[in-house]
Amino acid sequence: MAVFLATIELTVAQNEFPGVRRAKCSPPSGRVQLYEGHDNVLMKRLQALRTEMRRRSSTQSMELDAYLVPGYDEHQSPFLMEADQRVQFLTGFTGSIGEAVVLQRTAALWTDDHFLAQADLEVNCAWKLFRKGERPTITDFLLSELSPNMRVGGDPQLIPHHQWKNLDSDLKPGVIRLVPINRNLVDLVWGYRRPASNAPKVHAVRFAGETWATKVAKLRADLTAHRCDGMIVTSLTEVAYLLNVRGSDIPYVPVFKAYLLVTHEHLFLYTNTSRITHSVSTHLKTHACHNANCVKLREYEDVWRDLRTLSQHWQRFLVPGPIVFDTGASEAIHAVLPSNIILERPSPIIFQRAQKNDVEKRGMRQAHIKDGVAMCEVLSRLEERFLAGDVITELSLAREIDHARKKQNNSEGIAFPTTVAAGKNSALPNYTPTNRTNAELTESMLLIDSGGQYEDGTTEVSRTLHLGEPTKEQIQAYTNVLIGMIRLSMLTFPDNLKPAELDALARGPVWGSMNDYPHGTGHGIGSYSSVRESPISISYTAKQRYTFKEGYFFSNEPGYYKPNAYGIRLENVLEVVDTGKTHPTGYKFLAFQDVTLVPFERKLIDRTMLSVPEIKWLNGYNARIRELVGSELKRMHKMDAFYWMMNKTSHVCESNCASFAISTFGHLSLANIFTVVLLLARFTFN
Amino acid sequence: MAVFLATIELTVAQNEFPGVRRAKCSPPSGRVQLYEGHDNVLMKRLQALRTEMRRRSSTQSMELDAYLVPGYDEHQSPFLMEADQRVQFLTGFTGSIGEAVVLQRTAALWTDDHFLAQADLEVNCAWKLFRKGERPTITDFLLSELSPNMRVGGDPQLIPHHQWKNLDSDLKPGVIRLVPINRNLVDLVWGYRRPASNAPKVHAVRFAGETWATKVAKLRADLTAHRCDGMIVTSLTEVAYLLNVRGSDIPYVPVFKAYLLVTHEHLFLYTNTSRITHSVSTHLKTHACHNANCVKLREYEDVWRDLRTLSQHWQRFLVPGPIVFDTGASEAIHAVLPSNIILERPSPIIFQRAQKNDVEKRGMRQAHIKDGVAMCEVLSRLEERFLAGDVITELSLAREIDHARKKQNNSEGIAFPTTVAAGKNSALPNYTPTNRTNAELTESMLLIDSGGQYEDGTTEVSRTLHLGEPTKEQIQAYTNVLIGMIRLSMLTFPDNLKPAELDALARGPVWGSMNDYPHGTGHGIGSYSSVRESPISISYTAKQRYTFKEGYFFSNEPGYYKPNAYGIRLENVLEVVDTGKTHPTGYKFLAFQDVTLVPFERKLIDRTMLSVPEIKWLNGYNARIRELVGSELKRMHKMDAFYWMMNKTSHVCESNCASFAISTFGHLSLANIFTVVLLLARFTFN
Repeated sequence: MAVFLATIELTVAQNEFPGVRRAKCSPPSGRVQLYEGHDNVLMKRLQALRTEMRRRSSTQSMELDAYLVPGYDEHQSPFLMEADQRVQFLTGFTGSIGEAVVLQRTAALWTDDHFLAQADLEVNCAWKLFRKGERPTITDFLLSELSPNMRVGGDPQLIPHHQWKNLDSDLKPGVIRLVPINRNLVDLVWGYRRPASNAPKVHAVRFAGETWATKVAKLRADLTAHRCDGMIVTSLTEVAYLLNVRGSDIPYVPVFKAYLLVTHEHLFLYTNTSRITHSVSTHLKTHACHNANCVKLREYEDVWRDLRTLSQHWQRFLVPGPIVFDTGASEAIHAVLPSNIILERPSPIIFQRAQKNDVEKRGMRQAHIKDGVAMCEVLSRLEERFLAGDVITELSLAREIDHARKKQNNSEGIAFPTTVAAGKNSALPNYTPTNRTNAELTESMLLIDSGGQYEDGTTEVSRTLHLGEPTKEQIQAYTNVLIGMIRLSMLTFPDNLKPAELDALARGPVWGSMNDYPHGTGHGIGSYSSVRESPISISYTAKQRYTFKEGYFFSNEPGYYKPNAYGIRLENVLEVVDTGKTHPTGYKFLAFQDVTLVPFERKLIDRTMLSVPEIKWLNGYNARIRELVGSELKRMHKMDAFYWMMNKTSHVCESNCASFAISTFGHLSLANIFTVVLLLARFTFN
Repeated sequence: MAVFLATIELTVAQNEFPGVRRAKCSPPSGRVQLYEGHDNVLMKRLQALRTEMRRRSSTQSMELDAYLVPGYDEHQSPFLMEADQRVQFLTGFTGSIGEAVVLQRTAALWTDDHFLAQADLEVNCAWKLFRKGERPTITDFLLSELSPNMRVGGDPQLIPHHQWKNLDSDLKPGVIRLVPINRNLVDLVWGYRRPASNAPKVHAVRFAGETWATKVAKLRADLTAHRCDGMIVTSLTEVAYLLNVRGSDIPYVPVFKAYLLVTHEHLFLYTNTSRITHSVSTHLKTHACHNANCVKLREYEDVWRDLRTLSQHWQRFLVPGPIVFDTGASEAIHAVLPSNIILERPSPIIFQRAQKNDVEKRGMRQAHIKDGVAMCEVLSRLEERFLAGDVITELSLAREIDHARKKQNNSEGIAFPTTVAAGKNSALPNYTPTNRTNAELTESMLLIDSGGQYEDGTTEVSRTLHLGEPTKEQIQAYTNVLIGMIRLSMLTFPDNLKPAELDALARGPVWGSMNDYPHGTGHGIGSYSSVRESPISISYTAKQRYTFKEGYFFSNEPGYYKPNAYGIRLENVLEVVDTGKTHPTGYKFLAFQDVTLVPFERKLIDRTMLSVPEIKWLNGYNARIRELVGSELKRMHKMDAFYWMMNKTSHVCESNCASFAISTFGHLSLANIFTVVLLLARFTFN
């Protein structure tokens, strides 16, 4: 899963923002637009929301001139449960990235560039569409549409404190007020909302490697070091990690909706308690809990009252701030606490969690072996069937991949929507197939980016294949991406090196072709948790002071995208290992070890572009696949996949061996090559 | 010239600092130490200084308990003219890096680790010796030796403002006062001091590429942009650059001692005016100067009175702050100006100067061709004579190298003391030979680091040779350094990449051997100016926000040092070139071009460690040496050097050519190799 860089901001001169041109909305404004079917339902929702905005005038002082509908839940999670898909409920847009703003006379939706076409289809003509990350931003739009003294409402639980603060100060010059509206207006329109009701389950210590009591003790030591009376854990992955509990409230990430309040005396878990099973209850010692080392269960909504009451006794209280992939706590959390006790810091849990313990490390490696087995199974069948003339589409292949993962031991499904991008679709760096875009595989490039959740670990891998005869240019591009990936993987480095400082290793070969990939080179990855985890993000444009530590896992995923033609992405998960050696200045020398074990596409590699050490790395990597994945495939009697894998991972000649002759005299017959080898051998042993 | 990184600080527990153990100072303290000869002279100087420190009590309030003797001149220049070598005058220490502190009962000298042995020999037993960059620092020492309410004196003209400020605030907790003493006490002891008297000369526009009027106009535009009434130029290289005047007041850097005051209405040059020649005077239009576009000559010491008087009319005035290799203005400059008008910023001249114009670019390239000619001449003779059994020492070879440079067209001598380090001496990363250390060349490693001043440009090059049969380990180490150098040189990158972010490319191969070099990978280089120039410094431990620009020149100098065994350093000067291509986000794609043209040591290269693109780079580089240096050598009828160079730069086979066989079957006779080649050819063209 590639992490995308923001595009550079453009300055905008005009005062009115028409938004992206929408083909289906041709009637010029002024003429009456008719809405039918689902569009009509959506229009009614929009009008109901506007009514709620006006109704504010009677219940809470004045009416609202604009209302923000962010794409977050209360925990700023990467995916949303159905009841939190407010943007979709209101706009009809089903893409995963969207935020909306509603005014009395207009409404607008922001989404990523690659979702625009989909949004244009799905969203009716009452909505303007804008590109996220470009001008006009929501702020630009509000400043242009609103007059002084007008009011913008937003749900402070859904908006991260930092975004709230920035928006508030950006609106100030226009004398526009940002007002917290505690009741969510979309929910009012929606009516009854189903609460998070899936039962969480215990994440066994044989997978977690540590009891939750130990983790909480470590966290409390951190809080003591920060002289804090407590902390509110707002991120769902952190709650799940800390308590060794996993859930299924949102897709792809095994978490459950909850806040966790940690003080030196208490642990309060705020969640829908009706769904807490006996085993989780026993695990958390919730029964008759009267000390610091058991969990007191509270209803989800009680967190606000408790924070307000308990905070009166606190001197200093840690509230998670933004860091790398985490937005930090919501505005509502900040608003409920006395500002003088707040210590805003990246959550200490993030650093505890990033450094996997020995059990988690073994689990991550094991999960990637199973992942390798699943991928080899699918890919071996794929080539066979494609050659046999089967019709295979992106979505059908994605389903096969997901199915193969789910069959593995301790599988808990997939870690994010599987990307299968065939031909031109692979040129879109953040493509995920939908029914609308679903393409049939052809004799061209095929990019697969997928990952799984296993109880022992989370996996991710990207591979690019070619189902026909690749061009020289494609081979060169693929090999450049591979070289960047290998160079990063081979690096030994002192542990005070910042992640941004090794980006040039991975990007260098792609830069050499005057291109670049519009996403990060790598991101941290969780252990049966989110596939994208702070604090590691490799990107030369990002300023970060965090460094690698032994036991961190992260992705290494350079790419190359030729617009309207094809795309390449290769991704392995790396483990940070301590070499045991020391840099002259006293820092540790660290190195990386690839845990992903899936073969590369041989026909896309030009071995003459690789140095001997790089070829040796490739041979070593292939040998590890044969050993670890191979033995599994054999054990499971999956001999077709086994032979396919053996073929894909066979030895690549370094320099002084017969394949030198093969590569040079590729047009010769094997008999002739043999003669050359014999002749060379005669001279060698003369 | 490698730029060294500070070693990490050690915490110190003891209160008293004995300093480095000094063998020759065996009599335990308490017994009378006798000083004879020069030691006696030095003791008298030290006592005279102490008398001056006490005399302060009568002339300027109270006496001084400590006096600082910094190693700087008024302009914080990299080298000192004789009259500014106050540390040497006082202590007898002749090394280039030293600062001293004198108290009534003790005295101490700080110098770099590699100068300690020399200092121990040269300095008498009244002095304690300390390592610069380690604890105890001068601050630690003062805090330990002095009691509250004691006074430390220093010359504010010689101490950079930032150092003064830091020292002042570090001494505050000990209730110790830092007092500016305007009359330099060492000068009082020294008596009459010869002022800077070498006549500066005009640096012709055919070398500078721009008139000084244009440069001043650009600077004034910068000052306008900063809303400044003027600026004081304190760096000698900046004065020389801006006015197109060069001097010879200090060694190795062609500058003359002067301050330059630039306002929108005036240009005041403060220097020893008696030595200004008619041609410089004409060049600067000093005669009857009544407008903004001519230079008003003033005596060096007048700068203080003028700044004091003129500053009354200024609203805002730019004072150079510290940046990369520049310390910024002295404490005295800050003290003489009203603090509310000071805008402290890196000098805008630094950025103007770093981006060489077309004439300077051509000049830099031309200077490096001449440099290549000089190096090829010396190195070709060296091998011949060494094989013939001549006795060659480090110093004799350094003299030959310097002589060869001085014979070149437009030569202005050398750019820094030439390093020739034979055998174990090469293992010392900052070794420069002296009479005391001078070693005879043997069949081992030989590291040469040298550079020249030419009117058209400044050069620098490091090469490591082997005069015998290198070991496998040495070949591997050399090749690793070469690979790092080539990878950096080959990089194409977007121009928002920070220099620190490409350090891992150069260091990676050395890190791979669990080692590192204790100096930067690169530094900016001037055009007939200082060999070390801001703002570029490549070091992953340095935080810098400056980026490369087209026309910047800088060094690329990775190394490898095996303690007590041998050292390797390879250094080329690179020019930053614009590829004309644009990064997807709109930034420019930049690349590098090597301007240094000196062959590498073939027998230290293991070509099987290089990738094909790296070998291609090497072949391309060698071809450029043959073309550019070769044609010069031929034109000058230096045929011995020409053939030596041709041999050293002959084609390295990539992979699909006969030399593959040569490298693999190196033990075969040429006839046999020929047979192999013929056979290969037969099969190739079958």
